[in-house]
Amino acid sequence: MTDTLQVSQGQRGPADHNVRDQIVQAANEHFSRYGYAKTTVSDLAREIGFSKAYIYKFFDSKQAIGEAICAACLTQVMDGVLKAMAQANTATERFRRLFLSLVELSAQLFFEERKLYEIAAHSVSEGWESSRAYETRIQELLTAILREGREGGEFERKTPLDEAARSIYLVMYPFINPLMLQYNLDRLPDAPREVASLVLRSLAP
Amino acid sequence: MTDTLQVSQGQRGPADHNVRDQIVQAANEHFSRYGYAKTTVSDLAREIGFSKAYIYKFFDSKQAIGEAICAACLTQVMDGVLKAMAQANTATERFRRLFLSLVELSAQLFFEERKLYEIAAHSVSEGWESSRAYETRIQELLTAILREGREGGEFERKTPLDEAARSIYLVMYPFINPLMLQYNLDRLPDAPREVASLVLRSLAP
Repeated sequence: MTDTLQVSQGQRGPADHNVRDQIVQAANEHFSRYGYAKTTVSDLAREIGFSKAYIYKFFDSKQAIGEAICAACLTQVMDGVLKAMAQANTATERFRRLFLSLVELSAQLFFEERKLYEIAAHSVSEGWESSRAYETRIQELLTAILREGREGGEFERKTPLDEAARSIYLVMYPFINPLMLQYNLDRLPDAPREVASLVLRSLAP
Repeated sequence: MTDTLQVSQGQRGPADHNVRDQIVQAANEHFSRYGYAKTTVSDLAREIGFSKAYIYKFFDSKQAIGEAICAACLTQVMDGVLKAMAQANTATERFRRLFLSLVELSAQLFFEERKLYEIAAHSVSEGWESSRAYETRIQELLTAILREGREGGEFERKTPLDEAARSIYLVMYPFINPLMLQYNLDRLPDAPREVASLVLRSLAP
């Protein structure tokens, strides 16, 4: 099951062009070694052996390349989350899996490969399309779980659905946003488990 | 009502010495203007007109001076929080006031005077005594509210008290820790209000 985050901002030329993938892959390696902020499109061009003008045929900026890397990584996280959720039989269990797999996969992605954290941090703090699409997708999944739990009698129905969803997302957020997660890393995996239980107590009918 | 956070680590000589206050006040102004990290004890000595050796009679390091500034500020926040809490008649209302006044006063203290944020950030990330004493005090207040609400029948009693307290502190933490609060600033004041309501739903008997 693949849940592609549609992000193509700043991309140019034919969508399925092989060179595009080559650029993204080489850029990813280069950013990992030297950092996203320190790398220029000229550095990338030199490294890959393409002209700068040729790279600009596919991406209109360094950020557009960063977006493509970010979107690919976040799609990978989302695939893992959907896989974890698919194994749940109740809305309660689905919520736990959504939250805990998100935190686990984000921590792996952002912090085991520390240079990826840098691109993710840019994406969040500059409000890139990749981050916004990711956050929207999580909110949609959360709302669907709440709806399912309300319909099945697992969750309370007094609180307006949008308020419940918003407040739950707010307590999940510090474990999802990489800029905040870095200060919660030494509280894993217990903290998100306890927060998930608190959320589920708040949803009790 | 004053709730002094007892922090005297790294302080020397007579406790009520006037010169100590002079040093702290001058250091506070100097840090505010030039930043904590960039200032040395030699800079401070030159600014105040004391010898470095004389300053070391009262504080054993720059951090000890920073601690004194931090503890004074956090005591000020705590005074405001206790004042807000004193006006509440129920555990529910006391919890709301604890959380919301903490966030409001922290945001004022750390972000209206941006240079104070820098000392607070050092205090949290390096685990200074001032931060640890402050966090412990908040946890004690929270536990006392939970106990009061359980005894009065306002709150549920099934969840172990320490687990309830720990999980609530975890969802409050991103609004209290200045390093994380900076990413929540544009969500004030609505976000902590909605999180407080979520917490209170989780406490319903």
